[in-house]
Amino acid sequence: MSQDKTWSGRFNEPVSELVKKYTGSIDFDQRLAKWDIQGSLAHAQMLTQAGVLSSEDLAAIRQGMTEILAEIEAGKIEWSLDLEDVHMNIERRLTDKIGDAGKRLHTGRSRNDQVATDIRLWLRDQISDIQNLIQNLQSALVELAEKNAAVVMPGFTHLQVAQPVSFGHHMLAYVEMLGRDFERMADCRKRVNRMPLGAAALAGTTYPIQREITAELLGFEQICQNSLDAVSDRDFAIEFTAAAGLLMIHLSRLSEELILWMSPRFGFIDIADRFCTGSSIMPQKKNPDVPELVRGKAGRVIGHLSGLLLLMKSQPLAYNKDNQEDKEPLFDTVDTLIDTLRIYADMMRGVTVKPENMRAAVMQGFATATDLADYLVKKGIPFRDSHEVVAQAVRHAEQHGVDLSDLPLDVLQGFSSLVAEDVYEVLTPEGSLNARNHLGGTAPEQVLKQVARWKALLAQ
Amino acid sequence: MSQDKTWSGRFNEPVSELVKKYTGSIDFDQRLAKWDIQGSLAHAQMLTQAGVLSSEDLAAIRQGMTEILAEIEAGKIEWSLDLEDVHMNIERRLTDKIGDAGKRLHTGRSRNDQVATDIRLWLRDQISDIQNLIQNLQSALVELAEKNAAVVMPGFTHLQVAQPVSFGHHMLAYVEMLGRDFERMADCRKRVNRMPLGAAALAGTTYPIQREITAELLGFEQICQNSLDAVSDRDFAIEFTAAAGLLMIHLSRLSEELILWMSPRFGFIDIADRFCTGSSIMPQKKNPDVPELVRGKAGRVIGHLSGLLLLMKSQPLAYNKDNQEDKEPLFDTVDTLIDTLRIYADMMRGVTVKPENMRAAVMQGFATATDLADYLVKKGIPFRDSHEVVAQAVRHAEQHGVDLSDLPLDVLQGFSSLVAEDVYEVLTPEGSLNARNHLGGTAPEQVLKQVARWKALLAQ
Amino acid sequence: MSQDKTWSGRFNEPVSELVKKYTGSIDFDQRLAKWDIQGSLAHAQMLTQAGVLSSEDLAAIRQGMTEILAEIEAGKIEWSLDLEDVHMNIERRLTDKIGDAGKRLHTGRSRNDQVATDIRLWLRDQISDIQNLIQNLQSALVELAEKNAAVVMPGFTHLQVAQPVSFGHHMLAYVEMLGRDFERMADCRKRVNRMPLGAAALAGTTYPIQREITAELLGFEQICQNSLDAVSDRDFAIEFTAAAGLLMIHLSRLSEELILWMSPRFGFIDIADRFCTGSSIMPQKKNPDVPELVRGKAGRVIGHLSGLLLLMKSQPLAYNKDNQEDKEPLFDTVDTLIDTLRIYADMMRGVTVKPENMRAAVMQGFATATDLADYLVKKGIPFRDSHEVVAQAVRHAEQHGVDLSDLPLDVLQGFSSLVAEDVYEVLTPEGSLNARNHLGGTAPEQVLKQVARWKALLAQ
Amino acid sequence: MSQDKTWSGRFNEPVSELVKKYTGSIDFDQRLAKWDIQGSLAHAQMLTQAGVLSSEDLAAIRQGMTEILAEIEAGKIEWSLDLEDVHMNIERRLTDKIGDAGKRLHTGRSRNDQVATDIRLWLRDQISDIQNLIQNLQSALVELAEKNAAVVMPGFTHLQVAQPVSFGHHMLAYVEMLGRDFERMADCRKRVNRMPLGAAALAGTTYPIQREITAELLGFEQICQNSLDAVSDRDFAIEFTAAAGLLMIHLSRLSEELILWMSPRFGFIDIADRFCTGSSIMPQKKNPDVPELVRGKAGRVIGHLSGLLLLMKSQPLAYNKDNQEDKEPLFDTVDTLIDTLRIYADMMRGVTVKPENMRAAVMQGFATATDLADYLVKKGIPFRDSHEVVAQAVRHAEQHGVDLSDLPLDVLQGFSSLVAEDVYEVLTPEGSLNARNHLGGTAPEQVLKQVARWKALLAQ
Repeated sequence: MSQDKTWSGRFNEPVSELVKKYTGSIDFDQRLAKWDIQGSLAHAQMLTQAGVLSSEDLAAIRQGMTEILAEIEAGKIEWSLDLEDVHMNIERRLTDKIGDAGKRLHTGRSRNDQVATDIRLWLRDQISDIQNLIQNLQSALVELAEKNAAVVMPGFTHLQVAQPVSFGHHMLAYVEMLGRDFERMADCRKRVNRMPLGAAALAGTTYPIQREITAELLGFEQICQNSLDAVSDRDFAIEFTAAAGLLMIHLSRLSEELILWMSPRFGFIDIADRFCTGSSIMPQKKNPDVPELVRGKAGRVIGHLSGLLLLMKSQPLAYNKDNQEDKEPLFDTVDTLIDTLRIYADMMRGVTVKPENMRAAVMQGFATATDLADYLVKKGIPFRDSHEVVAQAVRHAEQHGVDLSDLPLDVLQGFSSLVAEDVYEVLTPEGSLNARNHLGGTAPEQVLKQVARWKALLAQ
Repeated sequence: MSQDKTWSGRFNEPVSELVKKYTGSIDFDQRLAKWDIQGSLAHAQMLTQAGVLSSEDLAAIRQGMTEILAEIEAGKIEWSLDLEDVHMNIERRLTDKIGDAGKRLHTGRSRNDQVATDIRLWLRDQISDIQNLIQNLQSALVELAEKNAAVVMPGFTHLQVAQPVSFGHHMLAYVEMLGRDFERMADCRKRVNRMPLGAAALAGTTYPIQREITAELLGFEQICQNSLDAVSDRDFAIEFTAAAGLLMIHLSRLSEELILWMSPRFGFIDIADRFCTGSSIMPQKKNPDVPELVRGKAGRVIGHLSGLLLLMKSQPLAYNKDNQEDKEPLFDTVDTLIDTLRIYADMMRGVTVKPENMRAAVMQGFATATDLADYLVKKGIPFRDSHEVVAQAVRHAEQHGVDLSDLPLDVLQGFSSLVAEDVYEVLTPEGSLNARNHLGGTAPEQVLKQVARWKALLAQ
Repeated sequence: MSQDKTWSGRFNEPVSELVKKYTGSIDFDQRLAKWDIQGSLAHAQMLTQAGVLSSEDLAAIRQGMTEILAEIEAGKIEWSLDLEDVHMNIERRLTDKIGDAGKRLHTGRSRNDQVATDIRLWLRDQISDIQNLIQNLQSALVELAEKNAAVVMPGFTHLQVAQPVSFGHHMLAYVEMLGRDFERMADCRKRVNRMPLGAAALAGTTYPIQREITAELLGFEQICQNSLDAVSDRDFAIEFTAAAGLLMIHLSRLSEELILWMSPRFGFIDIADRFCTGSSIMPQKKNPDVPELVRGKAGRVIGHLSGLLLLMKSQPLAYNKDNQEDKEPLFDTVDTLIDTLRIYADMMRGVTVKPENMRAAVMQGFATATDLADYLVKKGIPFRDSHEVVAQAVRHAEQHGVDLSDLPLDVLQGFSSLVAEDVYEVLTPEGSLNARNHLGGTAPEQVLKQVARWKALLAQ
Repeated sequence: MSQDKTWSGRFNEPVSELVKKYTGSIDFDQRLAKWDIQGSLAHAQMLTQAGVLSSEDLAAIRQGMTEILAEIEAGKIEWSLDLEDVHMNIERRLTDKIGDAGKRLHTGRSRNDQVATDIRLWLRDQISDIQNLIQNLQSALVELAEKNAAVVMPGFTHLQVAQPVSFGHHMLAYVEMLGRDFERMADCRKRVNRMPLGAAALAGTTYPIQREITAELLGFEQICQNSLDAVSDRDFAIEFTAAAGLLMIHLSRLSEELILWMSPRFGFIDIADRFCTGSSIMPQKKNPDVPELVRGKAGRVIGHLSGLLLLMKSQPLAYNKDNQEDKEPLFDTVDTLIDTLRIYADMMRGVTVKPENMRAAVMQGFATATDLADYLVKKGIPFRDSHEVVAQAVRHAEQHGVDLSDLPLDVLQGFSSLVAEDVYEVLTPEGSLNARNHLGGTAPEQVLKQVARWKALLAQ
């Protein structure tokens, strides 16, 4: 029995098969293998520098690990549930290869600090990938914005036509959101990139370890300063999942809009056929499956966030087995995020804009009423009074089924004697658009300024 | 191209590989194969009875499906991502086998009502399994309760010693919780067991279908009365996951207690070695991994619930692709529940109770103070005044580091002249226990009554 | 000090003011006063019947409580934070009025079972109100359905035009959802309506209580069978909040549709002005605030559900102070539900349907393509082949910017020689609608059958 | 009618009373009044500098706002539900005071950007307060750590005794967690402190506004670069609530431990009476209500997080009324956090440590087994073999009911001939503690180093 389990000397009976399956993690944590080996090699080198391990042992460990890594990459390793997790599988394989030196590798560490180190190393790399993918999606949106800076569409509030906006401006709103997502990933990465190794089981170790060496070898920015915290902390997983959830919420909003805009009554855009699917029964259907799934997958990621928070609630220090449940949600969150960002950037590059439909929609909601109110204010009426005057004019136009710009001058003057011939300039969508020409405004000139700003930022 | 996709006649370009992977569900929905075939067979029979399908076609479909089922069970079928999902994979395989009859199977239905039917058939069966497993766990707890009806342990409120309780009584509290879980599963099953088939894509179909026939063949209790609702409803998945989450919350509470009770300072119980694991670094460790994981897995299931709620929020009717995201959380919830219930019942049968430690703990918290207060009330003091008198006595005993039962008669009489020699009977844990002898009370006599009640219920 | 606190005899220092505020619940639990008194009166009567309390005491308690109830209803009572909660406030007021009899009321119970009883009594009543409000909203929808049974609108899947449906049919989809909500409330109410009283602090009591008497007096259907479970169970709050959350999800879906339909591009409906608000800056705006807020308030209720699940996770038995945190989310859930249901029924009665816009939208998406496919099937082509033929026809029509019904016969025959003059009958929206004439289908005849079914159900 | 509503000119009927109550926010957003005025004053000054408003109007506005602020502080203002929200209430009051100048204040802005600005200004201040309170709590924990650096307690993993740790070290684990909370608050504050003002309704404004001026006046670090994003973004609320939730999770963990440690079987600490409460029925009880409530309130804050995420999911741009639902959860999160941090710091200063009980507990779990394994490794055995040897020794000791340090030398040598007399040094808790003397380890020397580090950090 002691052959199979590294901790069984104290036990009177073997673990039941059901328990083995229930508690084992090798099915999902094998994806950490590469990072586990990376951590082990740094640990071994530090032990050698600290005089705890011999140079011969270190050489053997390096040689063995090189072989194991090759086996893993070749898909030749057989992961064993009897050995519980990726750490024990690799250590056993190493010992099979190099004997006692393999048994010495675990000196001065525990699986508690080892697994925490592995996940952080792995997540650090994933965050970097995610940051690149965020920027790739931002680039796709910036390109769309540039091309459509002067395309006028109805800006909605409450899904009612509010004021004309530039389609490019609308795209840039999402670039801003993704910009914050990028920042949050960077902030989170700082806290991921701290080294728990050296905390051992929970209290540190009796060996003269030098954590600064390991940290430098592994590229950690900081070292976890408290061993109990180091092994029990899962903040980084929660913070990452929260940032991921917010990103997915942003994409759920854009998805909602794409779906809406592709609905025939809107008809603002079309999504290339290769991102759509059909129906098994309705021959005419072309469905925007990708944005729909993205909207749905927001639930998936937020669900993982809820799960992780519940997982950690009320856990006493230090490590508890509950923590093993952090991995699957974290892995799935990363996978979902990476797949989604990748497909989204492709899809946005496959969006066709239909300016004529957008413009038609602008004309269906008195989109320039605010412009008329502002026009009157500039003629001297206080804003609140001007607002009331225009409301009456809108009511009149609505009853007659026409736009404000269709009302004859004398009718408009009936609402306010200050109205003059020049009023029709402010009542066109383009006039309205161009008039909002300040930092953050929707005027095409401002949109192009923002495009330039983002291009510069994304080129860094 | 039209060979590979049943809906591609209208499309100008094939779906991108990335999209295929992102939108395909065959990786996870293949587990529905058996239920999908069950539904198809009933649908085909109904079509024949309704005169839409010929008897020859029906015979061919039955023959083909029998073969396919055998292939699936033998693991010989190759699921193809090009065919998106389990429904299309099976239909294509059928058509390969039997030709045009296979192409006629989809008459009068759509994948929208088909998948909704499959999940409901599948979930209905899972709920039945889960109900059996709940009762199995209840039986294990009832056995423990019976054996330990007279074992006295400290009842805690606020984790402070409150009053003596029977360990058997404590176990029965969880039997009650599980009883409600069972009820909720039954209530949920009613609403799962309704047939969407016949709703077709969203509006019903132009064929003269007779849904009563299909419903009877499939054992559905009711028929969904509105086609739009039928294809878009995912209430049953949410309701089930909510019931599952509550069950896991109950087990998280029991797990918390098992972990606490196995901690050496408590030492109330031991869990058999086969349910525990050790440490890679600390040779003495025996860890209650199973209850810890269960506690953690509560997060997993609750996370799925959160995800499903978010999934459905603000979805317009009828079917949207978002809904495909219901499956993985639902499948994982069922798997988690089934594994957890199974292992938990085994584990509870491997619990060793340590009555001496429990009794020692009873003596550490003035557990019989309420009994003293009740004693005084029975002698004529109003409860509120009696409460205050005993509080003073406790304060005195605590300052002297003794239990109330250790205070000499004259000292007790110093707090109230009504105290007499018979006070010591009510100050023992056993006296306290036996005195709470009413429906729902902790007296061993009541515990055994409840044991009998549950045995009868579980034997049904 | 002992004057102010019923439990302070054992304490060396008074509770800090900050703690009093942090732990006190009188600010929010005062709304339970009426139900607290109801429970106390039943408890007192039972104690008298059981010989624990004298008839004189009972009479005094009744008299006192009558006065207190009047004071509460007149808003004359001053709730004191020093007395922590509603229970202690009422008991103190009673004792001030009637002396020792008041002090005897708490005999054989604890606040743990008392508060659990109060909440259940209160929630039971709220659920009944909510059930009535659900039915009221259902009635409003059924009326709309009846009036608009033959109004054709585009049925959407993936927000793409799928097939024509009846607007009445669409309304009835929500009646079905609300029907399940009603059922869930009824199922939940069964489990709410069980009596914890008699569990005392956690273990039952030493007095010869007769719980059957109290249960009958209070109208409880069942008695909680285990005292530990009785005081620690908050399942009913979670189950109720889950049912409430699902109801809000349903309303979030309807709200999404109302908002969409009121958007000018859709223009399917109008909501009466009295349910809308305007803009402080845009004079033309009329915003569907109510459905938007309902959509948002779904988050509020789901948030409470998440909070309650987290609250209970890993709590050891029996009562812990954590449980006090159940009240505010529960109260707010009930308030939100009641307000929302009330306003929603009013608002639905203020919806104006615009059939002409709906019909125009039907013509924008090849809504009868499935009808054409079915037509061909009936002429002998297998469904899969027919589907492909129609897909080609749709592609052709789309390229020419016309509907299928606009294609000349010879063009249609170019896709399949089986097409004949009668094809145009199936290509009209009305033809499509009427053809789906089976249980659950969208044909106006079926819609009216469902209207009749629901009217009968709601009249019960 | 137009007197009462600033937007009613276009409406045919007044808003129903129920709707007014349902959609109004004055009941809860009145707490923003001070920040609303702050924003208005800066906006007015900018308008004047930009030539849109006259100096006289600005002077009048300043005078009026000074009076209104005084009225608010004196509690003399009457908030009116007819005026919907805090913005309209203040504007109306201003106009009542100063006439037309008041009506001009809303020039070039909308409530959409106004409310977003108000919340950010308010939240920015709250975060600063929260950061101070975090540091205050950290200080209390650092003090405890310093006083108890050499107090030995059992370090737990899986709630089983793992290795001896310093109680001070344990306290510092929470200081680390709070340190990350502080960082996250700072990171979040950066993104809160960006100015939406100038976005107007959604598209910017036609007035020549200069947002840099307003931003500088209000102390914003950045200006929101996209008007659509500016009015629809609620990231900051979600990010803040996520950070708050994580903080509460940390406190839920510490609370769990305090409750556990105060349970008589542990008896590691006592919490001062002023933070505890008693029982209405059990005279002996002293309950740790505060940590229990904190544990429960973690659910409250996480619930708000879930709610806010659901709120934003799938919202199309730009502003929707749903967003009004962000305020109550945000306000309650801030209140909960501030109250909790304040009471927690006080409470930790009222904790009494009981070193003798902690030491007794260390002796109950073979806490020094790892030390024995390390001892053998240093004598030349590979760690894995040493681990197995010690496991056998533990098994032997457990069977005899003694600690490892109680085994005679010859018995220990029976497990390994390398054991010598010096083994007993490593088998004491103090020896074990002192041996973990490296960065992050539990040795008292390291604990004091960390205390010094934190004192320096907190003094900044």
